[in-house]
Amino acid sequence: MELAAIQDAQRRLHGLVERTPLLHSRYLSDAAGGDVWLKAECLQRTGSFKLRGAANMIASLTAEERSRGVITASAGNHGQGVAVAAQMVGAPAVVVMPETASFAKVEAVRGYGAEVVLSGLSYHDAAQTMHHLAAERELTVVPAFDDERIVAGQGTLGLELLEQAPDIDLVVVPVGGGGLAAGVSAAVRELRPACRVIGVQAAAAPGARQAWLTGRTATYPISQTIADGIAIARPGDVTMPLLRKYLDDIVCVDEEAITRAMVALLERARLVVEGAGAVGVAALLRGMVPCQGRRVAVILSGGNIDMNLLGRVVEHGLAGAGRYLVVRVAIDDRPGHLARVLAVIAGAGANVLDVDHRRSGAHLTFGLVEVELLLETRNASHADAVCAALSAHGYAERAAAERRAGVRHFAEAAAS
Amino acid sequence: MELAAIQDAQRRLHGLVERTPLLHSRYLSDAAGGDVWLKAECLQRTGSFKLRGAANMIASLTAEERSRGVITASAGNHGQGVAVAAQMVGAPAVVVMPETASFAKVEAVRGYGAEVVLSGLSYHDAAQTMHHLAAERELTVVPAFDDERIVAGQGTLGLELLEQAPDIDLVVVPVGGGGLAAGVSAAVRELRPACRVIGVQAAAAPGARQAWLTGRTATYPISQTIADGIAIARPGDVTMPLLRKYLDDIVCVDEEAITRAMVALLERARLVVEGAGAVGVAALLRGMVPCQGRRVAVILSGGNIDMNLLGRVVEHGLAGAGRYLVVRVAIDDRPGHLARVLAVIAGAGANVLDVDHRRSGAHLTFGLVEVELLLETRNASHADAVCAALSAHGYAERAAAERRAGVRHFAEAAAS
Repeated sequence: MELAAIQDAQRRLHGLVERTPLLHSRYLSDAAGGDVWLKAECLQRTGSFKLRGAANMIASLTAEERSRGVITASAGNHGQGVAVAAQMVGAPAVVVMPETASFAKVEAVRGYGAEVVLSGLSYHDAAQTMHHLAAERELTVVPAFDDERIVAGQGTLGLELLEQAPDIDLVVVPVGGGGLAAGVSAAVRELRPACRVIGVQAAAAPGARQAWLTGRTATYPISQTIADGIAIARPGDVTMPLLRKYLDDIVCVDEEAITRAMVALLERARLVVEGAGAVGVAALLRGMVPCQGRRVAVILSGGNIDMNLLGRVVEHGLAGAGRYLVVRVAIDDRPGHLARVLAVIAGAGANVLDVDHRRSGAHLTFGLVEVELLLETRNASHADAVCAALSAHGYAERAAAERRAGVRHFAEAAAS
Repeated sequence: MELAAIQDAQRRLHGLVERTPLLHSRYLSDAAGGDVWLKAECLQRTGSFKLRGAANMIASLTAEERSRGVITASAGNHGQGVAVAAQMVGAPAVVVMPETASFAKVEAVRGYGAEVVLSGLSYHDAAQTMHHLAAERELTVVPAFDDERIVAGQGTLGLELLEQAPDIDLVVVPVGGGGLAAGVSAAVRELRPACRVIGVQAAAAPGARQAWLTGRTATYPISQTIADGIAIARPGDVTMPLLRKYLDDIVCVDEEAITRAMVALLERARLVVEGAGAVGVAALLRGMVPCQGRRVAVILSGGNIDMNLLGRVVEHGLAGAGRYLVVRVAIDDRPGHLARVLAVIAGAGANVLDVDHRRSGAHLTFGLVEVELLLETRNASHADAVCAALSAHGYAERAAAERRAGVRHFAEAAAS
């Protein structure tokens, strides 16, 4: 990858992609001990950086290739990027998605004017259909990351970052197949060799880290992760040599850290960032990136998240931070017993958000009811204080081993 | 209000407040039929425009007044604005809040270095305590809106908007007490007399519209609203003459429209915007602002929303858009009956998110169970199609009059 290719891409993309804001975060600066800035690429058109690479590649095609059209297989951001990039230059586009793709993603791609073909149950099936259709209709395949034109397009984000903050010391970038990380690190290190660039992966899909450490690209196992946008089994053959040349390190973050980072971004930065886009912030909050005394730019690579999932992330994140406590109490099924529980909770200063009262359940002795209370608490130690108040008033807590995250079980003294 | 006062404020605020991004919205442009831009003031430090006015007033104080300190009564954005503005110039600050203020808001203000005094159960009580403490400790009161220095500070948002988009035709701005709307409309109309400026209120708190129409400032009744940041009973004596001079209209939006606007901003603009900040988008989506052929800037005035509330907004918004359907079905409590319901739903193409199976309930005949299913659906007509499929398979739907928003009730033929 030559710097010139990225600079060419930047000229080509002028007017097609947004210059996304670089926002200061006091919250993250305090938490990480550096001067932390957020490159809000989640505010890019289509909601992710993928537009840059796709637009650079499609704008590089010959007039004839463009008029025949392009195709890709993607249930995610790349599909949207290709759809919009093609629409901007008037090229027909086909996006092949597995039949399991969410309604929201199918509608979004159709809304951008592309033809959606639903095929098979996995990405692998969709990719096979893509190759078949590409041959049949003479369409140009737009790969998701393993192509120099794609990498050069993603690299424009690095050039833009240096224009916005020429004195940056450290860049933190998500890594999946490696297209974004390769392009950004090449741009940044070629122009500012002293600037460190650290990649971040989800621990559930650490293929690029493995390949980066060993120097061998292979197919690595991946588990379920909220950062599905960077859950890539096999990093690229084009991207890996660039990652080995330009990245200082690749670190991995767990699911809990990613969820909390997403909630912190919603609450403190007022930005909707998808799991894959939040891994950099997760690494900062976990203390895995040495920020002290540095000016740090964290790339928030995308913001496309299903609203149902967003709701669950908010709940889970609040529970994890102790801001939200679920208490189940087994009580006698007689008047006054629920009121007594509520009085103890009110006395401990928790706010009741929801009450669920159940008579049935295989684990309940006859004559008992189980009450599930959803409580708003200040933080983890306040949540513990609320539980301690219940215990002190004769509600025995079940063994800690039975606790699920954020749910604590109690039984009335008379009822235990 | 003279333009010069706003221009002075802009010089005073240089380096203290962020220049917030102006983002193009293709989604809203398509929906409203104009060229729609979002002024993302939700990305301001402290999460709202309130910092501008507070910082202008506090920076205008004498060195002696500053060293004695400032005080305000606010459970919301103004309190955070005052806390940060005071901290920036090294002035002590006291923020009086009602005891009912959310934990998150109290923690935020304390985190900004201010002293929090909790007093009484309403804003009125907190304001009394504020006046008492101000006299006792010789603190300067920073009013929320009814002061020329506050209005001039908020007006800097209008100057910034014209710098970012000199060719804007129409500005849409939230109205509560009128500080933001007065400052922005004065700045915009003094510099570009042909530009229209339209204010938006929540229908639940339409005091400024009433006063604006009649020319009489009084205290108006307010109801519960998700746009609590602009639920002001009595618009300002300083602000109202400016609103009458500079605003072209004030329109009112209902709660449903505000909630949907918040969800649209989360999903399509990837921005967290509080209820008061989303009223402009609500007015656009309701077709209340004629945008055709215009370049429109909608001010998203703030993004401070409790995460618990955000989760509920997402759920409600999805239900309202038919993207989310709750179905309750009474079925026979025998093997196979639940499976049969699920098969009908799968056949109709809905995605099951959650299943809740209950044996008890006063409304259930003995031997029946009620199953509550949370379904993901494509849109309102798909949700209707799912219900029609249940009816066609012998699950009788209860009378429409019994429907709650987003919840539909059915009973198995044998069980009805």
